[in-house]
Amino acid sequence: MPLGEFELIDRYFKPLATCGDSRRDDVTLGIGDDGAVLQVPPHHELVMVLDTLVSGRHFLPDADPHSIAHRALAVNLSDLAAMGAKPVWALLGLSLPASEPAFLERLVAGWRELAAPHRVALVGGDTTRGPLCLTVHLSGLVPTGTAIRRSGGAPGDLLYVSGCVGDAAAGLAVLQSRLFAEREAGEHLVRRLEYPTPRVALGRALRGIASACIDVSDGLAADALRLAAASGCGLEIDVDALPLSAALRNTVAIEQARVFALQGGDDYELLFAVPPGRVATLNAEAAGLVDITCIGRLEAVAGLRLRSAGVTQGAEPGGYDHFGS
Amino acid sequence: MPLGEFELIDRYFKPLATCGDSRRDDVTLGIGDDGAVLQVPPHHELVMVLDTLVSGRHFLPDADPHSIAHRALAVNLSDLAAMGAKPVWALLGLSLPASEPAFLERLVAGWRELAAPHRVALVGGDTTRGPLCLTVHLSGLVPTGTAIRRSGGAPGDLLYVSGCVGDAAAGLAVLQSRLFAEREAGEHLVRRLEYPTPRVALGRALRGIASACIDVSDGLAADALRLAAASGCGLEIDVDALPLSAALRNTVAIEQARVFALQGGDDYELLFAVPPGRVATLNAEAAGLVDITCIGRLEAVAGLRLRSAGVTQGAEPGGYDHFGS
Repeated sequence: MPLGEFELIDRYFKPLATCGDSRRDDVTLGIGDDGAVLQVPPHHELVMVLDTLVSGRHFLPDADPHSIAHRALAVNLSDLAAMGAKPVWALLGLSLPASEPAFLERLVAGWRELAAPHRVALVGGDTTRGPLCLTVHLSGLVPTGTAIRRSGGAPGDLLYVSGCVGDAAAGLAVLQSRLFAEREAGEHLVRRLEYPTPRVALGRALRGIASACIDVSDGLAADALRLAAASGCGLEIDVDALPLSAALRNTVAIEQARVFALQGGDDYELLFAVPPGRVATLNAEAAGLVDITCIGRLEAVAGLRLRSAGVTQGAEPGGYDHFGS
Repeated sequence: MPLGEFELIDRYFKPLATCGDSRRDDVTLGIGDDGAVLQVPPHHELVMVLDTLVSGRHFLPDADPHSIAHRALAVNLSDLAAMGAKPVWALLGLSLPASEPAFLERLVAGWRELAAPHRVALVGGDTTRGPLCLTVHLSGLVPTGTAIRRSGGAPGDLLYVSGCVGDAAAGLAVLQSRLFAEREAGEHLVRRLEYPTPRVALGRALRGIASACIDVSDGLAADALRLAAASGCGLEIDVDALPLSAALRNTVAIEQARVFALQGGDDYELLFAVPPGRVATLNAEAAGLVDITCIGRLEAVAGLRLRSAGVTQGAEPGGYDHFGS
């Protein structure tokens, strides 16, 4: 039996107001009124992000709602991570073809499993009938003046990336049967696409260390060039240094792995610039959070250059544009 | 020629960061990074709202994008008004079938014309290709502890509504050729549907006066019952007192006008409860903002009662539910 809008909110969404077992005490008023009422601590700024995921565009029409909810929350957490912010509150705009309990239970479970460890409280939103589409708004907090921007880099800053890159693009190719992978490697690649890990702890650790940061959503080369351009710089990427997973290396030739790494999107790793004098601090602070790899540097000359086997040449980034041809 | 996502943001959305001629100085960082950075003044709480509008559900598929943008912003401003909050920042999640300049120019113009007088700065968002769908997130500010809730009413509080009710439902009937109206009256009714006026100044004036407030989006009777129930009360509505526009009165019989007023949604007027001892203050503060009308009272006995021509009887609210049958 289809549920009414208000029953749906009560049964599925109000329980997401808590984070694991606890409520956030900065939520004066949560779901159930015309708006939520929230408290920002003194000497902090708010960081706000919003991302929309549309069926058939950001996830396959037959994707598990558990992974859809994970991704919708993860891409926003990743944006907050890139700013160095601590996530606090979410609002969810959900357009649904029908109010099917089985679908909603998976969706809510996927949300809860990622929201709880990050202590993100759902404080409001809107549910309506329509084509499947999720818009997530997240707020985060930073001590005033400490948000990390894309624009703070300078020539000579070293470029780092977290984790491995290229897995998600390869995972999409596997899902779409454009690429064959052995079972274990294929599962790893698909999982990296469907369950990206936002680097929230690393992002917070980078405050005061990284001069600039961006998350890798449209492709490493495109996003790195975007960071460099915002910083008034160009950049060189050392292609031989790109961190590639064993699953990716075992599935495709090294040249193809590097294309996935440079041009594929959806990795949701952090790409950041660090002045050489702060590298020791970086290594100390990032230790134990996630592997980081130096993959190049910002330079005074605009544009993107790729270096491999001792040869450097100019390149186009080849990223992803939602309205491009 | 279709525009790329980033060109589209630069050309259409970055100009919405300003409010009329000015920038908000509480925006540390706006559109163009992974997130916006924003400042909340001391001794204030944030109020957050989010609404999703889907083509064919919240507006007709051939609706003017100018009115679509107006409504998407207005319904959120109305939610903030119901909490007594001053609007400050917006984020927009936009799913678009194509990036047509003519469509986008109308959309942006409709947004700007409502955002500018309310000094709402667009600080971020996301644009993607997909079925036409807008999700707007708005933040507002209230001095700490002063947000108006639905739940603060008490038996004996008088119920007021702003403006006139029923016009938007009649306007929808006119648009759908279910109702014939003379030209001028029809234009008025349709305009009230397509260009609702959020009662932001009234909402702010009601802080410290209204014990409870809600905006009329799903139907006056349903929303009034919701306010009463949240306040642990029932209510009586004096049907003869409902404020009806001349356009509505001249278009339908009085009985039909009252059905539109009680059951029709989309009026986006404020419905609020006021303790009898604060009525004089209410009249002084609301004077010059918008007409307000006393239409009933909260009572100790749960449920909705309608009173007309001296007779009172129990009633079902008959409001709108997005997933109801």
